[in-house]
Amino acid sequence: MILLYATPLSGNAHKVRMALALLGLPWTEQPTDAAARGSDAFAAINPMRQIPVYAEGALCLRDSQAILAYLAARHRPGEWDGEGAEERGAIALWLSHAANEIANGPAALRLARRFGAAIAEDQAQAVTARFLPVIEAHLAQHRWLVGDRMTIADLAASPYLALAGEADIDLADWPAIGEWTRRIAALPGFPAMPGWPGS
Amino acid sequence: MILLYATPLSGNAHKVRMALALLGLPWTEQPTDAAARGSDAFAAINPMRQIPVYAEGALCLRDSQAILAYLAARHRPGEWDGEGAEERGAIALWLSHAANEIANGPAALRLARRFGAAIAEDQAQAVTARFLPVIEAHLAQHRWLVGDRMTIADLAASPYLALAGEADIDLADWPAIGEWTRRIAALPGFPAMPGWPGS
Repeated sequence: MILLYATPLSGNAHKVRMALALLGLPWTEQPTDAAARGSDAFAAINPMRQIPVYAEGALCLRDSQAILAYLAARHRPGEWDGEGAEERGAIALWLSHAANEIANGPAALRLARRFGAAIAEDQAQAVTARFLPVIEAHLAQHRWLVGDRMTIADLAASPYLALAGEADIDLADWPAIGEWTRRIAALPGFPAMPGWPGS
Repeated sequence: MILLYATPLSGNAHKVRMALALLGLPWTEQPTDAAARGSDAFAAINPMRQIPVYAEGALCLRDSQAILAYLAARHRPGEWDGEGAEERGAIALWLSHAANEIANGPAALRLARRFGAAIAEDQAQAVTARFLPVIEAHLAQHRWLVGDRMTIADLAASPYLALAGEADIDLADWPAIGEWTRRIAALPGFPAMPGWPGS
């Protein structure tokens, strides 16, 4: 049985939800709010005190990108995590962007605007301004981030861009990003996410 | 011919240097300082305006984690990038930490202390304080971050921790991290890096 430590509105948790739903795997969610993440019990599950955490039998894995890499290698090797070295490198690039620029840019801004979190506002604005033109230009030329089908690069990078409106970023200014997030939401089996346009 | 856009003191560039040297591959470096990164010519090579960039024939790849993933898949598949789904997930976890916590923690602090960069100081201190105990505890139990040999997880995570002294972080307080960075510096073929203890 797959247990996912999550909260309903976490974009990081939704990366894993998307993968599990698209794979057709059943899972159970363990609601894990800030109080739960502060407990000693949760520190043993994830010393970074973050969600999502994926637990299945003896396996306990943290970090949304890592969970996607695990699920891809186990269930869709090659297709979801890259055929050949060049695709593997290109997917790793977008996983880095998801872990850094997206997390510290649009996702941080959403945390502040939507949930009142204290963030490094200037840095979040600067990272967002530097990154959005780069992914917009890429998606203006490509339907998917890597290759000709959805990969874990799309799953890792899309949630906090789809939810950009909650960070006061208008996706009308970024049409290729907007189309791509709607393309992902239209995938058969896509799990609905509040705030994701087209979801 | 492999061309690496780099600067001598970049820890991110050193990740790639380490991989190339350990693989025994020859490469040429294109010194790329801040002025060069601001040029239109460099924006076409990397729109994020960062080093390192790896260029070989028609391939042009940015992001140190992505370059490591490419080199591993091409030259040491399985050994350097993980055998099986669990190792693949575990390696992706440390690549995420390298892209986020290490880049925005110890690496950012080094940029400020060593090079006078303006950073989000409070966030860099907080990320560092949250992350160092996690990797210290892991390395107190394991010689390598994933499995029983060096992988790209070690290459991605080690430079800015080895150089922590330049960020005013005393590795005497983090003995397992310190031993691991010296273990990496002792690998046959390891390329010297100014400031890396034992290098």
